[in-house]
Amino acid sequence: MERTLLADLAGKKGETAAIQGWVSVRRDQGKMVFFDFRDRSGVVQGVTLPNSPAIEAAKEVRNEYIVSVEGKVNERPEKNRKAGVQNGDIELEITNIEILSKAEIPFELGGEVNLDTHLDHLPFTLRTERSRDIFTMQASILDAYRNSLRAQGFTEFIAPALVGGDAEGGAAAFKVDYFYDRTAYLATSPQFYKQIMVGPFERAFTVAKIFRAEKSATTRHLSEATCLDFEMGFIQNEREPMAVLEQAVKDTVRAVAEAHSDVFARFNTTVPVVPEAIPVFTLAEAQALVAKEYNRTIEDTNDMSPEDERQICEYAKKNLSSDFVFITRFPTKKRAFYTYEEPGEAPLSRGFDLLFRGLEINSGAQRIHNYEQLVARMQERGLDPKKFEYYLQAFKTGLPPHGGSSTGLERFTARMLELPNVKEATAFPRDMNRIDTLLSTDKKD
Amino acid sequence: MERTLLADLAGKKGETAAIQGWVSVRRDQGKMVFFDFRDRSGVVQGVTLPNSPAIEAAKEVRNEYIVSVEGKVNERPEKNRKAGVQNGDIELEITNIEILSKAEIPFELGGEVNLDTHLDHLPFTLRTERSRDIFTMQASILDAYRNSLRAQGFTEFIAPALVGGDAEGGAAAFKVDYFYDRTAYLATSPQFYKQIMVGPFERAFTVAKIFRAEKSATTRHLSEATCLDFEMGFIQNEREPMAVLEQAVKDTVRAVAEAHSDVFARFNTTVPVVPEAIPVFTLAEAQALVAKEYNRTIEDTNDMSPEDERQICEYAKKNLSSDFVFITRFPTKKRAFYTYEEPGEAPLSRGFDLLFRGLEINSGAQRIHNYEQLVARMQERGLDPKKFEYYLQAFKTGLPPHGGSSTGLERFTARMLELPNVKEATAFPRDMNRIDTLLSTDKKD
Repeated sequence: MERTLLADLAGKKGETAAIQGWVSVRRDQGKMVFFDFRDRSGVVQGVTLPNSPAIEAAKEVRNEYIVSVEGKVNERPEKNRKAGVQNGDIELEITNIEILSKAEIPFELGGEVNLDTHLDHLPFTLRTERSRDIFTMQASILDAYRNSLRAQGFTEFIAPALVGGDAEGGAAAFKVDYFYDRTAYLATSPQFYKQIMVGPFERAFTVAKIFRAEKSATTRHLSEATCLDFEMGFIQNEREPMAVLEQAVKDTVRAVAEAHSDVFARFNTTVPVVPEAIPVFTLAEAQALVAKEYNRTIEDTNDMSPEDERQICEYAKKNLSSDFVFITRFPTKKRAFYTYEEPGEAPLSRGFDLLFRGLEINSGAQRIHNYEQLVARMQERGLDPKKFEYYLQAFKTGLPPHGGSSTGLERFTARMLELPNVKEATAFPRDMNRIDTLLSTDKKD
Repeated sequence: MERTLLADLAGKKGETAAIQGWVSVRRDQGKMVFFDFRDRSGVVQGVTLPNSPAIEAAKEVRNEYIVSVEGKVNERPEKNRKAGVQNGDIELEITNIEILSKAEIPFELGGEVNLDTHLDHLPFTLRTERSRDIFTMQASILDAYRNSLRAQGFTEFIAPALVGGDAEGGAAAFKVDYFYDRTAYLATSPQFYKQIMVGPFERAFTVAKIFRAEKSATTRHLSEATCLDFEMGFIQNEREPMAVLEQAVKDTVRAVAEAHSDVFARFNTTVPVVPEAIPVFTLAEAQALVAKEYNRTIEDTNDMSPEDERQICEYAKKNLSSDFVFITRFPTKKRAFYTYEEPGEAPLSRGFDLLFRGLEINSGAQRIHNYEQLVARMQERGLDPKKFEYYLQAFKTGLPPHGGSSTGLERFTARMLELPNVKEATAFPRDMNRIDTLLSTDKKD
């Protein structure tokens, strides 16, 4: 018999149907055995009656077994119907159960476990409703964000992960043993490549992997992360990439609101509020505001601290009805070397950050597009332009005024559902101490 | 004045307009200067008349300069109209030119250059019409393929690039210096992770980077490539993933046919032919067929040689009107350790390849889903199950019968436009001797 997805089962009332899926719960009541089944489309309750030919098989089945089941789709008596539950008005009266796969489980699925235990057992724990919700949400964010950029005239491209040098000059790049005893590095950003892509496409975006060898073990850092990057030509200043980003955020929030109201409810949170215009503060304004509002002093006036970020977001939520806040006018020296300085406002730059529910999820800027200026800036920063010859080709052969931004997919997902740790929003997180499971302290082989 | 995209310029006949873009060609005829301009939306011709206030500026402009231009959109006289050319019936009478960026170019864009020169200068040569066509096509393939899988019930996920071991046991994985003197590797495939994702989602797909340290310098190999991978649960055999793949191929070809008929024409090729059912041959059938058809002997009956692949495709194109061919029933020993053996037909497996215009672009199979069988197969192959404990969790805790496949994005793109080398279908190709530019022979630092 052909498989019926659980989402379609209510259309077969009174008929027999075959389903396939997981046993979420088995309740053995002696003469009868009840089941909660799930598949990719939903859930249903099943029952094996005392006279069922499947009663022996039903006794063998355990939680998380994978089964192929035949039965009759019965309408439940009025009093047993569950309102607001998928298939709450039907029940599958089981006539046959075939076990497709047994399951030996380390603990019951969906109970409280600490984060490391959860992460050590992801091949199992990704099956919890919580994990399925998070990564269903992430898939929707990805899709909506890309669709928004395409609708705004952007072309997708594939950025490389292997790069020839630790280009931005930090110590944060992983080294790779390349052919013939040469060293390559893992990209810390697709920045140079998306700027190059402004040449052919004016507007280009990429969903790229980035790798950071920083020894950081906070709730917001990963060794391997995914960024949603775009870059656009023919801008006047940073306001155009900010407007593209604002539109992408609006489109993404609208898409997840439509698709996942149930998920927001299960996470005890709400669809984020995006006003017609996301509030914009300069760094100085934002810090003056939180200093006054929270009656405290600002330690570092060159950058937003995590506390500054949380407080300005709290302020904006309360007073401006926005879950998002733009911060602009960071000092040029605190931004990447290619950041455009605001004429007449030096040392301030045309860089910006987007904060979402207390966390920076995006960083962007107008970039220097003039070849000579860019080379001069490199030299000011002690970088050797010779090492950047490939990248500099794009400028020597002409690039229009341009800018763009980069959103962290895991951070965006985490704040969407108010998850405390970005690792929970990463299907297979890597950090200093973890690749799949916790790393042993064995030395390099 | 607000910028008008060139695609919208014909709607402004008789008006003045401001455009921004690249100078593809400048023709100085003394008193008058003609230009071919391009932007992301198209092309237009411009002219600076002798009495124009822009005539001095026009004399300064060179090919590939980036400019902001104002002028009047004139209808061309009947005899000067170019049929079949975008904006062939209008001309911009230039009143002002501002140079946004000068360009110092190494050679004229679009001339014949050899592949290494092309690749050494990608920040410049990606701007050729040929490259823009290739990567516009690739963006459409990516989008269409993902849309098809989503429509077929698949959930997208992010697979990791950093892995803990060279899991499949080959010598083909790059080593990465990880934290505290530990060694990590770059993923050679997202295989294990997509199988794990069958647990939460039944149907999962990923667009993932894969890295191969093989010392291979053919026209079909890359050190870093992009794969379109999917995996699905509750299958009977390999025919279900083959059907999903066939649908994805049809949807992709339909999408690019609708969007890019002009590109196919410029590459002197045609939209690929996908019949209602893509022809399927077993390995034995395919080799017997080409041996007879091309009157030759088969050297290796365990796998298709590149010559076998070309010939079976040539045969299928001529006799079966298909640019695609499935090959099935490869020997199990020639496939990955997790490949499902065909019961009753050992040593043949439920693996398959998809060939497209003479080249394998996809490889797939039903996989072993039973924990004990999988462990036994590992041991037969001399692999240590202890090293696979994380992956094996997915099987120990239950996985349904499942299978899937992996398509090489660069190969798919290359064959779509009949490019001779897969590197041309890679925006930033990496191989044994190249990361951006050709690598020096400097030793490891």
